[in-house]
Amino acid sequence: MSSSKPVPLLKDELDIVIPTIRNLDFLEMWRPFFEQYHLIIVQDGDPSKVIKVPQGFDYELYNRNDINRILGPKASCISFKDSACRCFGYMVSKKKYIYTIDDDCFVAKDPSGHEINALEQHIKNLLNPSTPFFFNTLYDPYREGADFVRGYPFSLREGAPTAVSHGLWLNIPDYDAPTQLVKPHERNTRYVDAVMTIPKGTLFPMCGMNLAFNRELIGPAMYFGLMGDGQPIGRYDDMWAGWCIKVICDHLGFGVKTGLPYIWHSKASNPFVNLKKEYKGIFWQEEIIPFFQAATLSKDCTSVQKCYIELSKQVKEKLGTIDPYFVKLADAMVTWIEAWDEINNSSEDTSSNKVSEAAK
Amino acid sequence: MSSSKPVPLLKDELDIVIPTIRNLDFLEMWRPFFEQYHLIIVQDGDPSKVIKVPQGFDYELYNRNDINRILGPKASCISFKDSACRCFGYMVSKKKYIYTIDDDCFVAKDPSGHEINALEQHIKNLLNPSTPFFFNTLYDPYREGADFVRGYPFSLREGAPTAVSHGLWLNIPDYDAPTQLVKPHERNTRYVDAVMTIPKGTLFPMCGMNLAFNRELIGPAMYFGLMGDGQPIGRYDDMWAGWCIKVICDHLGFGVKTGLPYIWHSKASNPFVNLKKEYKGIFWQEEIIPFFQAATLSKDCTSVQKCYIELSKQVKEKLGTIDPYFVKLADAMVTWIEAWDEINNSSEDTSSNKVSEAAK
Repeated sequence: MSSSKPVPLLKDELDIVIPTIRNLDFLEMWRPFFEQYHLIIVQDGDPSKVIKVPQGFDYELYNRNDINRILGPKASCISFKDSACRCFGYMVSKKKYIYTIDDDCFVAKDPSGHEINALEQHIKNLLNPSTPFFFNTLYDPYREGADFVRGYPFSLREGAPTAVSHGLWLNIPDYDAPTQLVKPHERNTRYVDAVMTIPKGTLFPMCGMNLAFNRELIGPAMYFGLMGDGQPIGRYDDMWAGWCIKVICDHLGFGVKTGLPYIWHSKASNPFVNLKKEYKGIFWQEEIIPFFQAATLSKDCTSVQKCYIELSKQVKEKLGTIDPYFVKLADAMVTWIEAWDEINNSSEDTSSNKVSEAAK
Repeated sequence: MSSSKPVPLLKDELDIVIPTIRNLDFLEMWRPFFEQYHLIIVQDGDPSKVIKVPQGFDYELYNRNDINRILGPKASCISFKDSACRCFGYMVSKKKYIYTIDDDCFVAKDPSGHEINALEQHIKNLLNPSTPFFFNTLYDPYREGADFVRGYPFSLREGAPTAVSHGLWLNIPDYDAPTQLVKPHERNTRYVDAVMTIPKGTLFPMCGMNLAFNRELIGPAMYFGLMGDGQPIGRYDDMWAGWCIKVICDHLGFGVKTGLPYIWHSKASNPFVNLKKEYKGIFWQEEIIPFFQAATLSKDCTSVQKCYIELSKQVKEKLGTIDPYFVKLADAMVTWIEAWDEINNSSEDTSSNKVSEAAK
């Protein structure tokens, strides 16, 4: 069947990573856009629960038992009972690109009423260069009908390789618990038709709901930290990854884009539950963000792994004083890199551990 | 007549500055939006030419003879035969806010077909804070229906005072001569419904075609340099101002916004003429931009004037080696500040030098 369909961009070079605790009925809506890609499903919570995946999708699925079996003691770096567990999927992927999406995200429509192929837009974002070193006022200069404006240095017009494409959300905006509580009815209805590069030296709040990246360029830094079960904090998994990847992309000369594509975020999570998860993060981030804003990496940090290990040392030294959690997190960052290298450098295929189903 | 109309925002606190060499018929289209504001017209070129202003506008007009008379020897800092002369209007204004627009800019329409009140949007941009210290992925958090996203530090949510609002252009984009030559038919048709703050530490190409600013916060740095007649360069007046104001806003903690509003840019200037004006700038900017990216101001620079004088010294020292032009420019920067302070600190009203016409 699929052989008669046009082959989508990067069909064999991209995995879609989905963390979930429920049946993946949401995939029905994404079928036209996702069905030719391979899925990596990371099942959170009770491993004995059976997650139903709609027929016809090609996927591998990992539950907690799989993660423990594959990583052994190093499985401690993968969060449990938190969508941070998704980063396990990044680690076991064999592809160059990753797209990750939450299971409460549906296909959005553009202002003309057309369904948005979010993945296709992410791929365009990743395949086109970024412009982190100077701001282009007409947004993405590589987009059709656009260019660099007067005054943009010609030496910078080749741009930088794009490592990350951060997509946005219509309907339920990605607000913290206090904002959710104060504005329970606010919905994002504004479709901003732009993709832009986040300038070098500028941090941003990276949301993991609708996110794509070049795994070869930045994968080992896409660690979503220690969240959820047994940890004093939640809902900062993607933020943590966002701060780390931005510092490392800035150091290595890679670009990070934000803007299009939009997905339709269907349901607001419970703000009271969120507040409980977030509240430590809300005051910790007042110290964490200045730390990352000031962080610099030495010239020896020539690979993502080296950058990440260097950053973990700075985390332990400078954030460890906030709370012992950060010492544990710094150690987990090292464990993550060790596990990444073990999985990715071994010639063994981990597929013997996978629950796989071929596309029909 | 005007008393029966609703009073527009900042009616008595904002001047509209227009540099021109021709009759200002373009104002007819702007009448509903501009007619209650005061205009400062800076006539470039032959002072004996009479510039016709449509009936009913309240304006003062300065030609080269007026500029020479008012500034005396310091008039040397005001460019001739270049729209850079507009900054004379900023200097003699007595208002807190300035909007400047080119006379080939018409009223644009938004995607729903409504005429855009560009000035009103600029005023909103200026009256709302900026967010230069951290990036908000949903754009302007102060806009109705928007807010700060999860992970945005609460300590930064009050924002920073906005010094500059940089508007964009539909139809003819603001391209340099090489891009004009390569893409003669490219038109900007994309309406991006966003206002954003340009992050601290990031430079941008500031276009003077559709620009507003808070004169009290940043006025003395809004110098458009030495361009046109007798100078080796043109079309870098607004770029120069943009680099200077951004470094100074970053130092003083002010915000610079770009995005909405759009104007309709009616006519592309001649790319061959532009190339002649620009070509030195095209290679000079490769050195100028790194200079401004690296520029830092000392803690003693507590006012815009002090910042600007300090910057002029660095220009002389570090850019003077590129071309003697920059030594002359650095001196003109000092002259500009002297003239600014003379005009703005004197109790004398310069209006005796004006050609004024009251609104009828």
